[in-house]
Amino acid sequence: MTDTPNVLWIMADQLRFDYLSCYGHPHLQTPHIDALAKRGVRFTNAYVQSPVCGPSRMSAYTGRYVRSHGSTWNGMPLRVGEPTLGDHLREVGVRAALVGKTHMTADIEGMAWLGVDPKSAIGVRVSECGFDPYERDDGLHPDSVRQRWSAYDDYLVELGFSSDNPWADFANSGVDENGDLMSAWLLKNSRLAANVPEEHSETAYMTDRAMAFMEDAMAEGQPWLCHLSYIKPHWPYIVPAPYHDMYGAEHIVDPIRSAREQDNAHPLLAAYQKSRVSKCFARDEVRDHVIPAYMGLIKQLDDNLGRLFAWMDEKGLSENTVIAFCSDHGDYMGDHWMGDKDFYHEPAVKVPLIIADPCDAAHATHGTVSDALVEMIDLAPTFMTALGCPPRPHVVEGRDLTPILHGTKGFSRHYVISEHDYSSLEMAETLSVDQEDARTIMIYDGRWKYIRCEGFQPILFDLECDADELHDLGGSSAPEPTAVRTRMEEALLRWATQHHTRVTATPQVLDRMNKASVSGILIGYWDAVEYEADTGIPFESLTPVGRPNP
Amino acid sequence: MTDTPNVLWIMADQLRFDYLSCYGHPHLQTPHIDALAKRGVRFTNAYVQSPVCGPSRMSAYTGRYVRSHGSTWNGMPLRVGEPTLGDHLREVGVRAALVGKTHMTADIEGMAWLGVDPKSAIGVRVSECGFDPYERDDGLHPDSVRQRWSAYDDYLVELGFSSDNPWADFANSGVDENGDLMSAWLLKNSRLAANVPEEHSETAYMTDRAMAFMEDAMAEGQPWLCHLSYIKPHWPYIVPAPYHDMYGAEHIVDPIRSAREQDNAHPLLAAYQKSRVSKCFARDEVRDHVIPAYMGLIKQLDDNLGRLFAWMDEKGLSENTVIAFCSDHGDYMGDHWMGDKDFYHEPAVKVPLIIADPCDAAHATHGTVSDALVEMIDLAPTFMTALGCPPRPHVVEGRDLTPILHGTKGFSRHYVISEHDYSSLEMAETLSVDQEDARTIMIYDGRWKYIRCEGFQPILFDLECDADELHDLGGSSAPEPTAVRTRMEEALLRWATQHHTRVTATPQVLDRMNKASVSGILIGYWDAVEYEADTGIPFESLTPVGRPNP
Repeated sequence: MTDTPNVLWIMADQLRFDYLSCYGHPHLQTPHIDALAKRGVRFTNAYVQSPVCGPSRMSAYTGRYVRSHGSTWNGMPLRVGEPTLGDHLREVGVRAALVGKTHMTADIEGMAWLGVDPKSAIGVRVSECGFDPYERDDGLHPDSVRQRWSAYDDYLVELGFSSDNPWADFANSGVDENGDLMSAWLLKNSRLAANVPEEHSETAYMTDRAMAFMEDAMAEGQPWLCHLSYIKPHWPYIVPAPYHDMYGAEHIVDPIRSAREQDNAHPLLAAYQKSRVSKCFARDEVRDHVIPAYMGLIKQLDDNLGRLFAWMDEKGLSENTVIAFCSDHGDYMGDHWMGDKDFYHEPAVKVPLIIADPCDAAHATHGTVSDALVEMIDLAPTFMTALGCPPRPHVVEGRDLTPILHGTKGFSRHYVISEHDYSSLEMAETLSVDQEDARTIMIYDGRWKYIRCEGFQPILFDLECDADELHDLGGSSAPEPTAVRTRMEEALLRWATQHHTRVTATPQVLDRMNKASVSGILIGYWDAVEYEADTGIPFESLTPVGRPNP
Repeated sequence: MTDTPNVLWIMADQLRFDYLSCYGHPHLQTPHIDALAKRGVRFTNAYVQSPVCGPSRMSAYTGRYVRSHGSTWNGMPLRVGEPTLGDHLREVGVRAALVGKTHMTADIEGMAWLGVDPKSAIGVRVSECGFDPYERDDGLHPDSVRQRWSAYDDYLVELGFSSDNPWADFANSGVDENGDLMSAWLLKNSRLAANVPEEHSETAYMTDRAMAFMEDAMAEGQPWLCHLSYIKPHWPYIVPAPYHDMYGAEHIVDPIRSAREQDNAHPLLAAYQKSRVSKCFARDEVRDHVIPAYMGLIKQLDDNLGRLFAWMDEKGLSENTVIAFCSDHGDYMGDHWMGDKDFYHEPAVKVPLIIADPCDAAHATHGTVSDALVEMIDLAPTFMTALGCPPRPHVVEGRDLTPILHGTKGFSRHYVISEHDYSSLEMAETLSVDQEDARTIMIYDGRWKYIRCEGFQPILFDLECDADELHDLGGSSAPEPTAVRTRMEEALLRWATQHHTRVTATPQVLDRMNKASVSGILIGYWDAVEYEADTGIPFESLTPVGRPNP
């Protein structure tokens, strides 16, 4: 064990904030995650920077807004040269390892322009969002550009679960009463047991891989951050026995929605509601099949985390490892007549976040709850502090949560911001919105949630009076919503015009810029007398300068 | 000569738009630049993206706003991986060569992270803003980080002008009546003749180097863009004989300023007025010494361009070379009680721009004047079109000026935008403004010029009623300025929230994103019947997918 702590950063995928017992789910018990909350701080207002996997994760991994890193949608490569958490940690000798999913797409064109070989050590990191990949698995193995085959497929084949696509045929299919394979891509099959034993499912496998990483890392002795990034409870929604059968109709929470939301919908929300996935999840039969599977996947995840945490206790890792648990976004599950994610209602944009820091300075906050407005980009600077990495405020836009963890003053945020690019979704086509304009931004101050919809009236919810976000006040002419809209536009303008791309303003560069006037650039002096009076330096001492060093 | 035309892109440094006879200067005759205007289109509303060398040039060379490329001030490195005009042209076999100044600072840290050797062919291009440097010379040779010695210094030494700093002692000093060397860094020396014969001055030398490049390029046969980037009339203000003595007090145009500007100054403008360089240029003796030298430098530049254009005629290059002439920003010269540049009054932010395209399609517009609102970032896409390079709209934010050059419809712009980071200037210290907030943005619609000053009231000028920009309406409660301010804030918000960093959205990427749903990601289908009804593809045909290619 080193003096520097380690960080285990666990991320679930598509996990709603309210599907954990510590966040109040009435039927889903997640004792291991709840126990983690008792060892740390549980955040009740944590928001992702985009309500969809790719851009949300690129923000988490860079500590920067989507506006800043530019990877605005799934499959949009993160530009080469975008600095990441892994890069910052590497500078101070910390290994940033990936075990699981990133949703990263490499910038092949950018690498080619710069002559970076994607297979070189640097090229692999650039392709993995700055992480050293211990195991990369994005959990979607169709015939897509992103992933066709993984180490997990090999693992299944070795165990005898052999086919052309073991991920699809075993981990993500069920078997019906006739013995036929039923794909979990089709939602009617969600309640079948996955065609794989629990201990060989994706969640269990990735837990094992994290333990293998930590074993290796302990042997090596280098401080580390491990990003353990689970694929589930993301679709395809299917879970192995016995979890497939643990929940039923009696455990399904009613959808958050009202008829008024359909009748008076904002044009953009109307288009969302009309999308295939929304129409699908608005159906009771879909909710009735999917939600029990989704709950089972979360229960399985909790059990695996229990197994992992017990193992870490046994290995002596718990006392020196900061453990963070979060999700990359939520899941509508039919709320607001919508499915999947891709917008800013609480079920989609708010995530669970727990940070358990075992250090002495954090003991006083163990088991507490923080209502602070927190963004996912705050994790990177928090981990940097924990790992002894100096801050890089010209690059990392998140704010260090350490004061909250230590129970001291110093953390402040008035607004959280989230962005979305819907240019490749069917809504853009439905509404004939140009690719460049198919974008929305949410700004939320803890009460008012304002959504700027380019080309449309804004959307506004008052979560104090309307916690379920059923009444859009974007067009209200009442004085308060009107004033709020003006204030939010001004806050957005201030935010949008900040420096988001001045990433080369290192302390050395700023120092050099400030010294420019004494390094020989002397604009604005009439004569030598004026120069000496102003600077205290005789003009003659400046010139001639020496020849360059040979 | 190839079928593809060539482009000669001439840039002067710190040249005001109104110090050329074709732009109306009453005493300064610039017949060769005027003749170029007769061969092309002269633009009367061309604006730079930042009123200072570095960021203005980085915008010109990338075709992108300062907000987008992030190099917000001189010495702020252009991040590695930022795509440039040179990169785009290279893709279609065009050589983009630099002859002269760029003000580029290389991103050494970024290159190190990516393993790019600054001395490799790619590293040199990355360090030179995407150009292949035929000759790089930033024209400031003090003992600064940027440049201490250049090929021009070697050239002077070879001619016998030898010292520890030939650039300073010969090209940028005079000799007084006692034979003592008098540095042109001190403004009282501006009217002396430079201590170098005209034919060996910086302007003449760089003209010769451009001819040498074109000779080489003709021999090679590859199409080219040559960025001929002069250092003058930028300070140090001193010019060789006979130009040092051509202009006197009778040729100095009165300063544009009023006492009211000092009495009722906006806090930021008051701080500008109190800066050393502004106080200096507010003095009559400074104007009386500097302006004749500045005019002499411009006259010398015009004569050298005459020499260059005659040589190009002789070599047959004129008939196949698009020639653009512009500046990177202006010079206050005491107007508005200010010196140097760094703000948005017309003398600083507006530049001359002439584009002479010899092709048949452009004949009809030769000798015409365009009042269109044009930005410096429009040059890159215009040159790309001329050189047969496909547009890259996800990267290049400028708009192609070809329709104006061809006299057709298709060019449109309602606002021009310019940005400035004053964090390293004394105004930030005077006003105790944080480094992150020391920034301003100008938006101008052809009549109203609105300047957002973070932390301060905005500044607003009505150029229709107040062409000299003497009356700031930023605090006016009259209905029209009030409405204009609201409109400008909305326009700025729309602009600022656009995609500025989504540079990896290549057509291939967008195509891939749009095909995601048919490549095996099938969220939102209840069963195979629904799937086939929606897509026309039998579900069974999709699975299983094949194993990866060996």
